Amino acid sequence: MNAALSRNEGEGEPIRADAQTTFRSLIEGDRLLTAEELSIVEESDDATQLADHIARGRRTCVQVTKVHLKLAALLQQACGPYSEIFFDAALKRAEELDRRSEKAGRLFGVPISIKAHISMEGTGSDRGFVFDVLRPEAKRRLVDELEKQGQVEESIISLLRKQAEHLGSSNAPMVDKLLSEGAIIIAKTRMPQSVVQLDTRSNLHGQTLNPLNMNLSPGGSSGGEAASVSAGATFLGLGTDIGGSVRQPASCCGLYGIRPSVGRIAVAGINSTMPGNEGIIGTAGPFAKSRRDLELMMAILASGSHNVDPFLCPPIPWQNTEDVELPKRKLRVGVMYHDGHVEPITPIRRTLAHVVEQLKADGRVEIIPFDAEDAGVVAWKLARELYCFMESGQLIKSLANLTNEPLVPLTRYICETSPVKNHSAAESWELQYARETFKRQFWKRFGSSSSSSSPFGPDAKIDVLLCPAGAQVAPRPGKIWYWGYTSLFNLTDLPGVVFPAKNFVADSKADLQYEGREKGRTQSNEALDKQNKEEYERNREVFDGAPVGLQLIGHRFKEETLLKSLELIEHAMKH
Amino acid sequence: MNAALSRNEGEGEPIRADAQTTFRSLIEGDRLLTAEELSIVEESDDATQLADHIARGRRTCVQVTKVHLKLAALLQQACGPYSEIFFDAALKRAEELDRRSEKAGRLFGVPISIKAHISMEGTGSDRGFVFDVLRPEAKRRLVDELEKQGQVEESIISLLRKQAEHLGSSNAPMVDKLLSEGAIIIAKTRMPQSVVQLDTRSNLHGQTLNPLNMNLSPGGSSGGEAASVSAGATFLGLGTDIGGSVRQPASCCGLYGIRPSVGRIAVAGINSTMPGNEGIIGTAGPFAKSRRDLELMMAILASGSHNVDPFLCPPIPWQNTEDVELPKRKLRVGVMYHDGHVEPITPIRRTLAHVVEQLKADGRVEIIPFDAEDAGVVAWKLARELYCFMESGQLIKSLANLTNEPLVPLTRYICETSPVKNHSAAESWELQYARETFKRQFWKRFGSSSSSSSPFGPDAKIDVLLCPAGAQVAPRPGKIWYWGYTSLFNLTDLPGVVFPAKNFVADSKADLQYEGREKGRTQSNEALDKQNKEEYERNREVFDGAPVGLQLIGHRFKEETLLKSLELIEHAMKH
Repeated sequence: MNAALSRNEGEGEPIRADAQTTFRSLIEGDRLLTAEELSIVEESDDATQLADHIARGRRTCVQVTKVHLKLAALLQQACGPYSEIFFDAALKRAEELDRRSEKAGRLFGVPISIKAHISMEGTGSDRGFVFDVLRPEAKRRLVDELEKQGQVEESIISLLRKQAEHLGSSNAPMVDKLLSEGAIIIAKTRMPQSVVQLDTRSNLHGQTLNPLNMNLSPGGSSGGEAASVSAGATFLGLGTDIGGSVRQPASCCGLYGIRPSVGRIAVAGINSTMPGNEGIIGTAGPFAKSRRDLELMMAILASGSHNVDPFLCPPIPWQNTEDVELPKRKLRVGVMYHDGHVEPITPIRRTLAHVVEQLKADGRVEIIPFDAEDAGVVAWKLARELYCFMESGQLIKSLANLTNEPLVPLTRYICETSPVKNHSAAESWELQYARETFKRQFWKRFGSSSSSSSPFGPDAKIDVLLCPAGAQVAPRPGKIWYWGYTSLFNLTDLPGVVFPAKNFVADSKADLQYEGREKGRTQSNEALDKQNKEEYERNREVFDGAPVGLQLIGHRFKEETLLKSLELIEHAMKH
Repeated sequence: MNAALSRNEGEGEPIRADAQTTFRSLIEGDRLLTAEELSIVEESDDATQLADHIARGRRTCVQVTKVHLKLAALLQQACGPYSEIFFDAALKRAEELDRRSEKAGRLFGVPISIKAHISMEGTGSDRGFVFDVLRPEAKRRLVDELEKQGQVEESIISLLRKQAEHLGSSNAPMVDKLLSEGAIIIAKTRMPQSVVQLDTRSNLHGQTLNPLNMNLSPGGSSGGEAASVSAGATFLGLGTDIGGSVRQPASCCGLYGIRPSVGRIAVAGINSTMPGNEGIIGTAGPFAKSRRDLELMMAILASGSHNVDPFLCPPIPWQNTEDVELPKRKLRVGVMYHDGHVEPITPIRRTLAHVVEQLKADGRVEIIPFDAEDAGVVAWKLARELYCFMESGQLIKSLANLTNEPLVPLTRYICETSPVKNHSAAESWELQYARETFKRQFWKRFGSSSSSSSPFGPDAKIDVLLCPAGAQVAPRPGKIWYWGYTSLFNLTDLPGVVFPAKNFVADSKADLQYEGREKGRTQSNEALDKQNKEEYERNREVFDGAPVGLQLIGHRFKEETLLKSLELIEHAMKH
């Protein structure tokens, strides 16, 4: 059917390095866009610039939308990121916007994409399960049958009945906010079966590929978003993140992505796999090509959240980054090279080491090594237990069983290797107690030593924590087992922004050389660590050209300070 | 032993109305305070005034502390509100404060009390269980034995081991805040066994009585606090509230009390009965004799919360009430006369009706009847299931069983009548989903109809909701079964302030007359409603003189607006 699906067949076989292709080389090699189309695509570096072009009348919404719909159609053939492309609706919306006398809105005319499970009127909201796309009557019948079989708890049946209908009857408030700024939503993007993986593959849609290196996955679970924005088909994306699902794909695709603190964005209207599970709470976050675009998206999505959902969102007004003041001393940047569990592969270690050297050379930054001790081990165990497995994965398994679809390998993997168990209420309390204790212990390393004095401002030990966005770069499809570098910060609910280390990519030659020069590396006996290294070492040339993203972690609810710190760090990296 | 304990014996027997006594009449009748002492007690209406007297040098801290310690000792004999009185430590602190050259602090020299389970260095933190006061080795041995018997889940054993030591090794941050404002903590106050009752009785301490009518309970679970502040032994109190435990006793004792939104106060350092339970989250709240004292306490307790506990508390600075602006139109006051489940007894209905008439006569208020429909029924079922019974009450029962102490009647009552069941994880998810759905449905009646437009400011349908603080006034000891009027707002996490309807008390003659004039009252078939009415009608004269408190509910995290609205309402009530 498409390039994406055909990739599935060779699962498990190492793909040879000479098979590398970028989406861009396909477009250029086969001249799939006209010169005029190419110039429209290339004349805007980011959404802010595009909106400016349109506002000044340099381009119309229709011109821009047509090219980006074409690009999306081509990308769908090559990499398969979309669950749906809104050809007609997007063009109609563009025409309507062009007719407006006032071009108001900070995203006026900007083509964007959103992740499939975010509600939007008249569009599908599947989560990668075949069951999701069935008609309501068919769903009801299947759940009735399952109930009759009596092998699944009553509460599971009840929660299955609460799974939202496929066709959205209204817009999520986030969608309304984007639309009210003049955005044109041209597509919805694919999710992996069950959401719980850092890859994007389902029986419903197949495997999504990375436009920067089509041997690789774009990551997941918002991998469709990352692929779409990375390929330039959409300028901005909106994903969700409960274990790294915005940050890891952003890192895999050379983009900016942020997971704000839970409660910064009102996320009502997301079709969740596990309604009522509060073990670890997911949230939404944008993808962008530039830091200013990311800030703009946060400004739009975070403002007024409390009015939309006062139960999730405290009344914290969004502060423009220009108005944020950093401490008058040097910025204290903690650096966590290793989470104490799984070592990042060579291109990431090499990149982080170089970036730290760049920062050290800059007078505005103070580097503070951050020893994670066993945080990575403890957090990975806790997080998996708190996700979707407190009820022994019954919901996820039932969602697949209802239509007799098999679990895809990574869904099976996480179910089989996690502490899957049907927890009693007391066991859940114990877990929740452990989570709250872990958070505060971890946090002590950021704050000042005295519990009552401010960990912010002049007193902070660490203003921001710089660390890998994962142990791997973009993985080969199906070959990503560890979420620890991102899920650690879902567990602790500290906001994290991922940014591309712009001059760094995986480079097998440079990486081999770097390994030769490294001294005194920690050897781990962890199976997961070994598996990860073997995967990289057996296939290192396959990863050539994969971008390297880094992650910057801030204080809870201080997203503006985090983004302002990133600005300083990116300036400092230029030295 | 003391009056309080001897009251237990007659449990179940109606106490005759002529047995009524107030603590004040005891003091005055027996001349238990000297004229000088009485004048010290009576010259300050509230903490603000007392702090002013001390700051101006009119009184010393030692003078004030001595009198209030004496008053506390007398009150302990009469009503038994304290778990511990700090005679030596409080005097030492007073002397130390008097030696300071600068009398800095908004509570300088003010005698206050705190609820027993709030940690304070070197003081006990029992929660009404005999087990709590044992030495660590003894506790360990008992839990080891329980584990060996193998009849309780492992997680329960593990949670039992996490129960804090009796003797606090450090101050809760709330305590530090009060001390840093110059407060003198002269006592800790009693809690009922298990916390989960609106009365204050335990095998450890006996029954606490209401100083305004010693036939009655002060309410609970912060009943000791309410009794102490109501009797004037302490000027301010700090309690906790997970189902009404600040608001109901405040109402029973003629005081102001507030339960702020969870996260407004950093409550670290509370010895909880059920660590890790997040079904409904408790919080702390102050008791005061005046609105300005209550505001002062909130200003002190809420400021800087985010720095103390960024995981519980969002960064919302406390705004002084003078700086709060109410909408430029009339204040929209919703009135909920009945929660759709249990009808408030006559003195409360009569008071609320009169207050509404007063408000209607004032041009600044618009009265909007609020139909609760079945909210009271649904919320009471949900709340009880979410409290401590998701694990079928094992923790509470084990805490009593460890020392073979029996459950006191109200603990037994709530365990026996609640949907007690060992929930599976999926059942917990279903419950949590139901809670989140209920919150938002209930909230819709406050906000504007469109989900994305602001429910605050000019658009709000209802700015504040006026309602009873309970179905009963101060109950006879052991005779309080329904928490619905307060627990509804723990479930929805909407902040609630209780205030005394100053010219209203239970008055059997006036109440009988009022009943005669009432038309078209709803008859309920609920057993709970009948039980409540019967208790009142059989004993109506016993309640004579019991104060009537009312409750004002605000928008989440908008405590300042709530208190400002209360100011307007209290002004309007004077008309």
